[in-house]
Amino acid sequence: MIAHMNEESLRRTLETGEAVYWSRKRGLWHKGEQSGNVQHVRELYLDCDGDAILLRVEQQGGAACHTGKRSCFFRQLEEGHWQDVGVQVFDPEKVYGS
Amino acid sequence: MIAHMNEESLRRTLETGEAVYWSRKRGLWHKGEQSGNVQHVRELYLDCDGDAILLRVEQQGGAACHTGKRSCFFRQLEEGHWQDVGVQVFDPEKVYGS
Repeated sequence: MIAHMNEESLRRTLETGEAVYWSRKRGLWHKGEQSGNVQHVRELYLDCDGDAILLRVEQQGGAACHTGKRSCFFRQLEEGHWQDVGVQVFDPEKVYGS
Repeated sequence: MIAHMNEESLRRTLETGEAVYWSRKRGLWHKGEQSGNVQHVRELYLDCDGDAILLRVEQQGGAACHTGKRSCFFRQLEEGHWQDVGVQVFDPEKVYGS
């Protein structure tokens, strides 16, 4: 998955060991606080120009995506069309309600 | 590495099979056109909300980063400090000049 952080979300990530992001819609967003699918941060990497961070996480529940797929990148381009090649881990209706 | 694309850069990526990005500074940017370290795109994935693309590439020359490191994410957080844990593949002064 890809998400944004601000200074406060990074600070909380480091303090708690669980990924905290930031979005214009949600503000501070402790990933998994509703679904339980938190991300236990194992490693953090900073990129060459210092504006992106890569987290290696242990994904509680096995799915990072709100759709219940293992990864948010579940559509693969095949012969000009995006094909769903995702692994469905949970039913989002059961986790988030309808 | 992480970089931006616009519609034209994605179109050229698909046409040529090599990663083309877009930046405010460079405009259309055919990655590797100077260094020779182009990225042969093997797989493309789209994320759940359709605003990010993941490329799986074969990295010509073995280094994606302009620093000559294998990955742009070569600094790892260890005990509160960013440590260089990168693999140096080429000397950027030799590739890009001084």
